[in-house]
Amino acid sequence: MLDLNELVDIEVTLAYVRYAVMLLVKMMLMSTITAFFRMKKKAFVNPEDTASFGEGENAKKYLRTDPDVERVRRIHLNDLENITPFLFIGFFYSVSGVTLSTALMHYRIFLGSRIFHTIAYLVPLPQPCRALAWMVGYLVTFSMIYKLLMKRMYLVLG
Amino acid sequence: MLDLNELVDIEVTLAYVRYAVMLLVKMMLMSTITAFFRMKKKAFVNPEDTASFGEGENAKKYLRTDPDVERVRRIHLNDLENITPFLFIGFFYSVSGVTLSTALMHYRIFLGSRIFHTIAYLVPLPQPCRALAWMVGYLVTFSMIYKLLMKRMYLVLG
Amino acid sequence: MLDLNELVDIEVTLAYVRYAVMLLVKMMLMSTITAFFRMKKKAFVNPEDTASFGEGENAKKYLRTDPDVERVRRIHLNDLENITPFLFIGFFYSVSGVTLSTALMHYRIFLGSRIFHTIAYLVPLPQPCRALAWMVGYLVTFSMIYKLLMKRMYLVLG
Repeated sequence: MLDLNELVDIEVTLAYVRYAVMLLVKMMLMSTITAFFRMKKKAFVNPEDTASFGEGENAKKYLRTDPDVERVRRIHLNDLENITPFLFIGFFYSVSGVTLSTALMHYRIFLGSRIFHTIAYLVPLPQPCRALAWMVGYLVTFSMIYKLLMKRMYLVLG
Repeated sequence: MLDLNELVDIEVTLAYVRYAVMLLVKMMLMSTITAFFRMKKKAFVNPEDTASFGEGENAKKYLRTDPDVERVRRIHLNDLENITPFLFIGFFYSVSGVTLSTALMHYRIFLGSRIFHTIAYLVPLPQPCRALAWMVGYLVTFSMIYKLLMKRMYLVLG
Repeated sequence: MLDLNELVDIEVTLAYVRYAVMLLVKMMLMSTITAFFRMKKKAFVNPEDTASFGEGENAKKYLRTDPDVERVRRIHLNDLENITPFLFIGFFYSVSGVTLSTALMHYRIFLGSRIFHTIAYLVPLPQPCRALAWMVGYLVTFSMIYKLLMKRMYLVLG
């Protein structure tokens, strides 16, 4: 019978938790940034959100889409689409027998790519800055998937 | 070597699973509510969805956005943005050596804040009801993150 | 004290990881398909993305929404809404004492339903193909939730 204590290298799993928390904090901050831009640009989507600006037409003019608000919302959605898969794959990867240094390299590059992606999207930096930032995080995730596939084959053969 | 059985308090982990399942059921119900509102308000987005209403212009008029449908979709997206981080953070938290009563307090307040957020968004209740409901869940998640950071420092020093 | 090694059936957990990875790869591919359709249909959303097409009005005409691009984005969002809950529920399910064959049946039907959902959405196949594909995956997730609820009762009584 396989012993879980042999499977889980606590150092690697703690590194995973540390980077997962940093990524989640980064992703959750997008909510606050969205709220900040909505108030700064006075661009809301729900009638009840503009009630404090007065009644009738006076409040209705704040029910509008703003390019900056939409930009922040796209970053948030892009985070959800990319960080959620990383959190699952990164966890499986952390218990796949990988060494601490290799795991840290993957986690660090991914975190860096997502932070740079957000900066490139917010400023915005000229393309292909944002595209490359996204691509690096995407490839790091697939590199971990590749390792998992190799490991599983080993388990089947071994 | 660290023993996983010492790390995992099965009571706390079971509490996590219980609240995670309730939150996931709540989030998944948004799909059904969206479908219900799409049919009730006859507001669809894909041409193939309106084929049963006839052909040509007759069906095309149902390809429209409806405020109530969009409202439910925003709740669903807000759930994804907030419940997904909670599920990861709450799991790390459950194996961080927290007591059952403290963990339960966090999980219960978070579940309550998300249910109240949905009610405040659906009715809709006047602001700041929805904003406060969102804020409570957000702060509960950050309270667990704070505990994780403290714990990790302890692990580094200890 | 409960022994984690008795709780975790490594065969079932490995099956979970295998199907989770396949579902995550399928979901991540939606990013690439979105980028492909954006370039094929020349339909972009950020001004910096169209800078290479020239300046002023020449580039602005590519800042538009395209029905095919929006369709792919809806598939991606639907994946996020359905695959994320499955990944959590499926993991809890894998450590709930389920047999390998029952777990595999759930995981396989879910993966099949999501692949068929994507095909039905992309082609698009006439309704109710897509609706049924979505429904099957939804019900598989609730079938696992039902098992978890039953199991928890057992744990409380046992």
